[in-house]
Amino acid sequence: MEIPIETSGRHTHLSQKDLEKLFGKGYKLRKMKNLYQPSDFAAKETVDIQGEGTRVLTLRVIGPIRNKTQVELSKTDAIFLGMAVPLKESGDINGTPGAVLIGPENKVKIKEGVINSQRHIHCSIKEAKRTGLKDRMLVSVQTEGPGSITFHNVLVKVKENYRLCMHLDTDEGNAACITRKGKGKILLN
Amino acid sequence: MEIPIETSGRHTHLSQKDLEKLFGKGYKLRKMKNLYQPSDFAAKETVDIQGEGTRVLTLRVIGPIRNKTQVELSKTDAIFLGMAVPLKESGDINGTPGAVLIGPENKVKIKEGVINSQRHIHCSIKEAKRTGLKDRMLVSVQTEGPGSITFHNVLVKVKENYRLCMHLDTDEGNAACITRKGKGKILLN
Repeated sequence: MEIPIETSGRHTHLSQKDLEKLFGKGYKLRKMKNLYQPSDFAAKETVDIQGEGTRVLTLRVIGPIRNKTQVELSKTDAIFLGMAVPLKESGDINGTPGAVLIGPENKVKIKEGVINSQRHIHCSIKEAKRTGLKDRMLVSVQTEGPGSITFHNVLVKVKENYRLCMHLDTDEGNAACITRKGKGKILLN
Repeated sequence: MEIPIETSGRHTHLSQKDLEKLFGKGYKLRKMKNLYQPSDFAAKETVDIQGEGTRVLTLRVIGPIRNKTQVELSKTDAIFLGMAVPLKESGDINGTPGAVLIGPENKVKIKEGVINSQRHIHCSIKEAKRTGLKDRMLVSVQTEGPGSITFHNVLVKVKENYRLCMHLDTDEGNAACITRKGKGKILLN
């Protein structure tokens, strides 16, 4: 069963509160482009993240606004910033490290929310019925070519407004020689 | 069959000619530490590599001296430098991109030699006999834990002064949640 693959560069989701601290009172995200997941868009806005030292990386803001601010870094990013960033499912930020985010208006010190996102598959309810994928299932996905890899522990997430696609971070994509888009084969364990 | 895994950060092997251009006439590498492979050592010396733009990364020099200078970058490094770096077996640098290397004495423009090293296994002749691994064989290696991955197309390299170990670049290691050292299981295809 074939599945499209996309790599996600480092990015941040923002709460309305943090957005307004970073960009000013009443600020609203401006859409730059729609993403393959109908639920999400890349905003025109970026913010910087400062790690333990003086090193800084720039993060694309991904909309829409969420209840909690969450920063997603690759392990390479985390090592560059001198941060110990745990592998976590998106949304599961309890006890994760914080960081300083820097916007044009102000800095915000978030107390938690920096993660290395667990590789996952987005899937609509209809696609789940068609493919046999179930919400919260762990599957393996094999890629092709000289960089061929089988990724295990891929978390399936089923929601109405999702669209069948596997998300890797840039380290995982690079390891499989996939730069932005690729494809794989789902192996049901 | 279990196998130790090491990740290799970006580094360079140097020819004596390029070493002398970079560090001065008659220069000799100074050993910083032995590596797990008895054939190799990390030198005290580093050089910088400059990509297409103004971005620069620092490379550890790995000794001993080789016939040809060869730079090994991860894909993340290559993207940072704005370079298109092919996946190649170490030593197979025909037609690969060049770069500018910067040492304390001088710059050197190498015409070729920048690669993303193909994942591989070092193995002594004795270990090959014991394990059934053969020189130039391609095998798969599975890692454990939450970041579990099966790496395919792993090239086996058998030589007297090698020691059983799989080498990954930092993207591959990070993808599998292996920072410096880890272990895997060889799956004969």
